[in-house]
Amino acid sequence: MKSARPGKDRVVLDTSLFVNPEIRNDFGNTPTAAINGFLEIARQIPSLEFYMPSSIFRELLNFVNEKEIPGRLLAVLHQKSPSKHELTCPAFLLYELIEDIRERVNRGLRIAEKAVRTAGKSDEQDIIQGMRKNYREALRDGIIDSKEDVDLILLAKELDALLVTVDHGVIKWAEKLGIRWLLPSKFRDYLMSFIENEQDQNSSEGL
Amino acid sequence: MKSARPGKDRVVLDTSLFVNPEIRNDFGNTPTAAINGFLEIARQIPSLEFYMPSSIFRELLNFVNEKEIPGRLLAVLHQKSPSKHELTCPAFLLYELIEDIRERVNRGLRIAEKAVRTAGKSDEQDIIQGMRKNYREALRDGIIDSKEDVDLILLAKELDALLVTVDHGVIKWAEKLGIRWLLPSKFRDYLMSFIENEQDQNSSEGL
Repeated sequence: MKSARPGKDRVVLDTSLFVNPEIRNDFGNTPTAAINGFLEIARQIPSLEFYMPSSIFRELLNFVNEKEIPGRLLAVLHQKSPSKHELTCPAFLLYELIEDIRERVNRGLRIAEKAVRTAGKSDEQDIIQGMRKNYREALRDGIIDSKEDVDLILLAKELDALLVTVDHGVIKWAEKLGIRWLLPSKFRDYLMSFIENEQDQNSSEGL
Repeated sequence: MKSARPGKDRVVLDTSLFVNPEIRNDFGNTPTAAINGFLEIARQIPSLEFYMPSSIFRELLNFVNEKEIPGRLLAVLHQKSPSKHELTCPAFLLYELIEDIRERVNRGLRIAEKAVRTAGKSDEQDIIQGMRKNYREALRDGIIDSKEDVDLILLAKELDALLVTVDHGVIKWAEKLGIRWLLPSKFRDYLMSFIENEQDQNSSEGL
């Protein structure tokens, strides 16, 4: 998996930054307000380039009214898919993924068996709801489980970028692949530090 | 994923050749007899090199008495793990794997839900047995699901070898990666064709 260190530092963003209420509040009260809040800060930082995989951008459009997204966003937040036919991934990760999935599949079966054994002892709908929750946790939490997840990881690797995401599965793979990552809850502070630095530089140059 | 075309053609073997009763009968009636039968043929073919991933060889030892395995086998059938820290796999395969698993995980949940809904209508043990079967089919059949599977694929790729296996998941990945493969049921004929060729050559040289 090759990556190039660009002149400008690059940042790859997940949707959570604008969609997850606990996180987006740093930037705005609604997804659209959060995008505008981010834009306002981002355009003051010429030393950073911001990217979002096209698939993740499409996900984002489900949460906002497309007409309300300012055109400027597309100039600041670049949409780019990873070069998936050129990139490669170390083979040992394939082992880790397959072993992880194998264990989870076994766990999923045990959860299902337990639910069948409980059936009749309480409300069927309750049992199914509980089983769904446990099953999804066992098979999905902390693992990359969608092509959007793979897009985030590969794009960050390709661009040697900082990855901003809250997804545990994606973070785990970022660490396996040596990708820098940051929790979205720290992202506003991270951006502000750039603005402060540039202001400091400007004022010292003005002296 | 790099591979080198060697002077001698190489063959990577799965255990099924010696273990699966329908297949091993081409070579012998028991796993040990099948190994000896294979050895007898293989040692007459100097133009082929035979390999088995170490993990697969260990699996094989579960089916035979180690003491009954002739020492010659290890001279004819090389044990070698793939160079898993050097090999890479094309990133687009990661997408296919993740999407395939995602679909199977959803199917597994639907199977579990159906079993819970059937519970009480027939014998609990029957329902669980049926569910296990359907679940395993949905989540395991036709997919690589163990490190032994990954070993087979990567070793065949590394050695640019012919892969002899009956596993559908492994065959599917062999095709994705451009690996030649052969069903074990055709393997004896394949080997015999080499012996016949060499005999033909020898007799024409003798003229």
